[in-house]
Amino acid sequence: MVVVMKPDFTPDQLKAAIEAMEAGGVRVMVSKGSETTILGAEGNASGVDQERIVMLPGVDRVMRVTEPFKKSNRKYHPDDSVIALGDGVAIGGNKLCVIAGPCSVETPEQIVGVAKAVKAAGASALRGGAFKPRTSPYSFQGMGLDGIRLLQEARAVTGLPIVTEIMSTEHLDIFEASVDVIQVGARNMQNFDLLKRLGKTTKPILLKRGLSSTIEEWLMSAEYIMAGGNHQVILCERGIRTFETYTRNTLDLSAVLAVKKLSHLPVVVDPSHACGMAWMVERMALAAVAAGADGLIIEVHNDPQNALCDGPQSITPEQFSALMPKLSAIAGCVGRSV
Amino acid sequence: MVVVMKPDFTPDQLKAAIEAMEAGGVRVMVSKGSETTILGAEGNASGVDQERIVMLPGVDRVMRVTEPFKKSNRKYHPDDSVIALGDGVAIGGNKLCVIAGPCSVETPEQIVGVAKAVKAAGASALRGGAFKPRTSPYSFQGMGLDGIRLLQEARAVTGLPIVTEIMSTEHLDIFEASVDVIQVGARNMQNFDLLKRLGKTTKPILLKRGLSSTIEEWLMSAEYIMAGGNHQVILCERGIRTFETYTRNTLDLSAVLAVKKLSHLPVVVDPSHACGMAWMVERMALAAVAAGADGLIIEVHNDPQNALCDGPQSITPEQFSALMPKLSAIAGCVGRSV
Amino acid sequence: MVVVMKPDFTPDQLKAAIEAMEAGGVRVMVSKGSETTILGAEGNASGVDQERIVMLPGVDRVMRVTEPFKKSNRKYHPDDSVIALGDGVAIGGNKLCVIAGPCSVETPEQIVGVAKAVKAAGASALRGGAFKPRTSPYSFQGMGLDGIRLLQEARAVTGLPIVTEIMSTEHLDIFEASVDVIQVGARNMQNFDLLKRLGKTTKPILLKRGLSSTIEEWLMSAEYIMAGGNHQVILCERGIRTFETYTRNTLDLSAVLAVKKLSHLPVVVDPSHACGMAWMVERMALAAVAAGADGLIIEVHNDPQNALCDGPQSITPEQFSALMPKLSAIAGCVGRSV
Amino acid sequence: MVVVMKPDFTPDQLKAAIEAMEAGGVRVMVSKGSETTILGAEGNASGVDQERIVMLPGVDRVMRVTEPFKKSNRKYHPDDSVIALGDGVAIGGNKLCVIAGPCSVETPEQIVGVAKAVKAAGASALRGGAFKPRTSPYSFQGMGLDGIRLLQEARAVTGLPIVTEIMSTEHLDIFEASVDVIQVGARNMQNFDLLKRLGKTTKPILLKRGLSSTIEEWLMSAEYIMAGGNHQVILCERGIRTFETYTRNTLDLSAVLAVKKLSHLPVVVDPSHACGMAWMVERMALAAVAAGADGLIIEVHNDPQNALCDGPQSITPEQFSALMPKLSAIAGCVGRSV
Repeated sequence: MVVVMKPDFTPDQLKAAIEAMEAGGVRVMVSKGSETTILGAEGNASGVDQERIVMLPGVDRVMRVTEPFKKSNRKYHPDDSVIALGDGVAIGGNKLCVIAGPCSVETPEQIVGVAKAVKAAGASALRGGAFKPRTSPYSFQGMGLDGIRLLQEARAVTGLPIVTEIMSTEHLDIFEASVDVIQVGARNMQNFDLLKRLGKTTKPILLKRGLSSTIEEWLMSAEYIMAGGNHQVILCERGIRTFETYTRNTLDLSAVLAVKKLSHLPVVVDPSHACGMAWMVERMALAAVAAGADGLIIEVHNDPQNALCDGPQSITPEQFSALMPKLSAIAGCVGRSV
Repeated sequence: MVVVMKPDFTPDQLKAAIEAMEAGGVRVMVSKGSETTILGAEGNASGVDQERIVMLPGVDRVMRVTEPFKKSNRKYHPDDSVIALGDGVAIGGNKLCVIAGPCSVETPEQIVGVAKAVKAAGASALRGGAFKPRTSPYSFQGMGLDGIRLLQEARAVTGLPIVTEIMSTEHLDIFEASVDVIQVGARNMQNFDLLKRLGKTTKPILLKRGLSSTIEEWLMSAEYIMAGGNHQVILCERGIRTFETYTRNTLDLSAVLAVKKLSHLPVVVDPSHACGMAWMVERMALAAVAAGADGLIIEVHNDPQNALCDGPQSITPEQFSALMPKLSAIAGCVGRSV
Repeated sequence: MVVVMKPDFTPDQLKAAIEAMEAGGVRVMVSKGSETTILGAEGNASGVDQERIVMLPGVDRVMRVTEPFKKSNRKYHPDDSVIALGDGVAIGGNKLCVIAGPCSVETPEQIVGVAKAVKAAGASALRGGAFKPRTSPYSFQGMGLDGIRLLQEARAVTGLPIVTEIMSTEHLDIFEASVDVIQVGARNMQNFDLLKRLGKTTKPILLKRGLSSTIEEWLMSAEYIMAGGNHQVILCERGIRTFETYTRNTLDLSAVLAVKKLSHLPVVVDPSHACGMAWMVERMALAAVAAGADGLIIEVHNDPQNALCDGPQSITPEQFSALMPKLSAIAGCVGRSV
Repeated sequence: MVVVMKPDFTPDQLKAAIEAMEAGGVRVMVSKGSETTILGAEGNASGVDQERIVMLPGVDRVMRVTEPFKKSNRKYHPDDSVIALGDGVAIGGNKLCVIAGPCSVETPEQIVGVAKAVKAAGASALRGGAFKPRTSPYSFQGMGLDGIRLLQEARAVTGLPIVTEIMSTEHLDIFEASVDVIQVGARNMQNFDLLKRLGKTTKPILLKRGLSSTIEEWLMSAEYIMAGGNHQVILCERGIRTFETYTRNTLDLSAVLAVKKLSHLPVVVDPSHACGMAWMVERMALAAVAAGADGLIIEVHNDPQNALCDGPQSITPEQFSALMPKLSAIAGCVGRSV
């Protein structure tokens, strides 16, 4: 922690700032620059309230020097976390984890059919939305609990672990009992009530990055879950909101690198939601693997033309089958396998 | 609804696109431009699924021409909505509504003291956080239900309606029974489960704009509440996330004008959260009133230096008292009163 | 200047970092935190190359504590700069400076007519584009030097100082000889070749903020002009680029406050370009004055319907006349006059 | 072109809008929706002034349906453009073009040494800055014309074509006579005076995307150059400005896909400037090739620790040599070679 004094601070103000820092349990080193005097905290600064210091007369600003995330921080957990999804599937190790499936669960035939197809092509897990976060209250909101049951059916047939989004804390028990990975959507990334509850479950959590969330905020949301006791957090980069409107969002692949450096948690990339256009999915999936993602989550629909949701960004099972060997080739170039 | 064909569409593709539109219940007008052929829908296009049309071969894109928000749309409700907060206080009429109080409720003395002070200065309602959405799980999370009780105490003493944020659907009954206005924070603006539940309550909802929410998305979140039956929605502009880091967020005052044109709902401005610095609050509050806001929500703390949360952006009761006559003067210039 | 060491730095690395800092002419204070060790520079750190230090082994990052702008910095020039535009008009003092006129100069009748009208309504200076920065090479590019001559004619008739944009260093002599204020457009804010040349002229420079320019970058561009010897820089906030598309840009009124605090230079606001819609101009102009702007620059056209450029954001002379007394009233509320 | 009428338009307003469109040379089709009436232009709409139509009473908005870029548009030039840089090097074909070299030219030993090293590792061209666009007027501004001479020396030794940035139209003749590819920096992407002049040169232009430039604006800047007669434009994605501050900019790899679809021009990616950190360069370079870039431009410095500019984002010749076979492997996976 570093405190920068205003140019015209008085000796009394300096004294008060030092005392306030010392009251938080640190010793203080004073460095007088030609224009600026700074105070450095020596010892454990976690007891010093930064907001109070910054308001002291004569203080210009306070700069944090330690990262606020702890359990998700690679500094205290240098090895990559590998998270088991069930049925022998894991994420975070050398083998990439490819999660595929439709935006929404629609019918038994659709979800079981897609599940079989993506399993045959080499997918590791099945995604499918039962509860859908839609911008409009007048849009299809998902099949709800019936959708969960259909996902379980698809799992029974294929053995694929299932990944689906939770939107209400009321469904926590059902999700815990029924699904393999609980997804938190981008719009709920800072729904702290939900995050705290998920910290008490025993299932892996796939935490999507919020639309305008910084990397630090994203890791702090992971921290909410981990602070509750559940350390099985999978991060998912799915595009951020920028001024560019050609794509639905802007896929931030450098965030994969940043997060892998800052944290030990595995990271998957969702090219479908990031771009919003099926024709971009293949190339952005390949780029994500080249960048170092631990996995992908891809929307696959048997009949995108008639999908109830997000058809334009869904690829077909045939396209997914054609993609998998290409992913495998790229993975090989960066020392990984699919 | 307008469908733009690709430059090289075939007659069969045109025919298929027209049939798909007609299947949705509209007649179709074809306009052949020198480079582009477009199809216009005649009649009620709400039955046409835009996502399906956009995926048809030969179709380049689909452009929406009607706004997706209905109940919040000024087109169908030309007069300004005026929403009663209780105790004779209303928002949306000629008189501005100034909501003031601390970021967090901390002690009985603090909240009752601030309530008395802002009441004396002319505030219309009291704000105070009992449940706090904090980026870090290690930060003070608010007093919870005890905070609600202290707010009720402050109301009992001053008669000011109370405004406080909800973070969990589990607290809906208590909020409905205890508070006058239920606030939805920026981070929960698209927590659709929460919005749907609030649509079934009888209390006014203060809906903050999400950090990276477009004006249309914000109105669609209002629509979620209104579609449930609760039409008492107050919009709150509190700054958006941009590349600029000098201020915590960038206050978007043109959004006040935009929303007042598109919607009949009242709009308040929160200069405290937008800027994050107490010294900016007065001027941005004056600017908000000049721009046409229906009210303000301002953080006032008796001892910002020792506030448990957001001290740096809180003004003191003395500063608030000094602000009110200035607000009143500006309001007079634009035909309103405080 | 503060250097933060990596958690696992070695004694040799610490020694090397200290030596590198000392080689830049400072003494170094070492503060050992529980997690982080920091080095504070004591003395004048301007000789220390930050980029070199940050690459040293064992160094995590370098934090700057002094602002990089000097001549534009209020610290070294506490009083507001007042800049004379000619003909007794000044900007930066108690009296607001309202600059008005069409986007483009089109005909003698148009520019002289508008000049007379805005003069009669109380404008202090005339704006008008002769060289136009257009996104498309196929759009009207302005009248060029003929436009400059028409502006001079309008000045001869009305006595209003003229403000117009320069786009090429080739025109520097003509601009210096012909106009009163040379405008640098948002797209050229970091055209450093142009800025350096303007530093050698004797005319006031109106420097628009770049579309995605931070406040610091904006002041650094002012610094380029001032470092060349020309201290007459007027800053102009004209909206920044954000994710919101309802308005052309997002007017950032908190930037006015920020810049007035950081710098002694005067700041004007351009609500016309910021919003891109004539109906928003009045309210955003009032808000800008309430926020503390030193002036406004407003597009006024005698026949917006037939303007060659930016008609939709131009107000009429009648609307401008109606606006001026309102501006005057708001100015009065914040201790200023028009 | 589509004109959307306001809900409450009058028959006279409809008539006037139709006449105004017809005056621009098109026939007009009227589609009456249940809520909205739209007018479609039939024929060549380029003669219709969109800004005038949008201001007509009763008109709500005008939607463009054709792209404003023509010469850079793939619609009118379906095949990929392949641009020769000299010495048998080309960009846009099957073989990737890797441009490498230091941020700034510093000494003969440095630039010739780096040129030899990157040539040996397989680079196709040499980059090096002689004129440097620096945020601060107090930073090193480049060696200027001496730097150009050193680049020529490096070309004489290695045979590599040279790429360097122009900052002033005064240097056009020298650049045309001395360098192989003229670079336009991100900050000058909308310096239209410069773009027009470059349209009259005979050299390939490497046009960097502006920090907050949309894909359409970027192509319109290419259009400025091409409209002048010079069709040899190479686009360069180098990261955009977003709210995220961990990286210097946010590399937008989906823009590569978008631009390749919209335009026939080749696209290179600059991972060094995008990320600002040397350790990210390798992975982002691999990702760029996987995404479909036609080439890369990478900062390589023999002694990053002592570079005069941008050392932290420069990789060493050794790191570059290690990168090339990895690029080659990824290129092979997507059907290309290095």
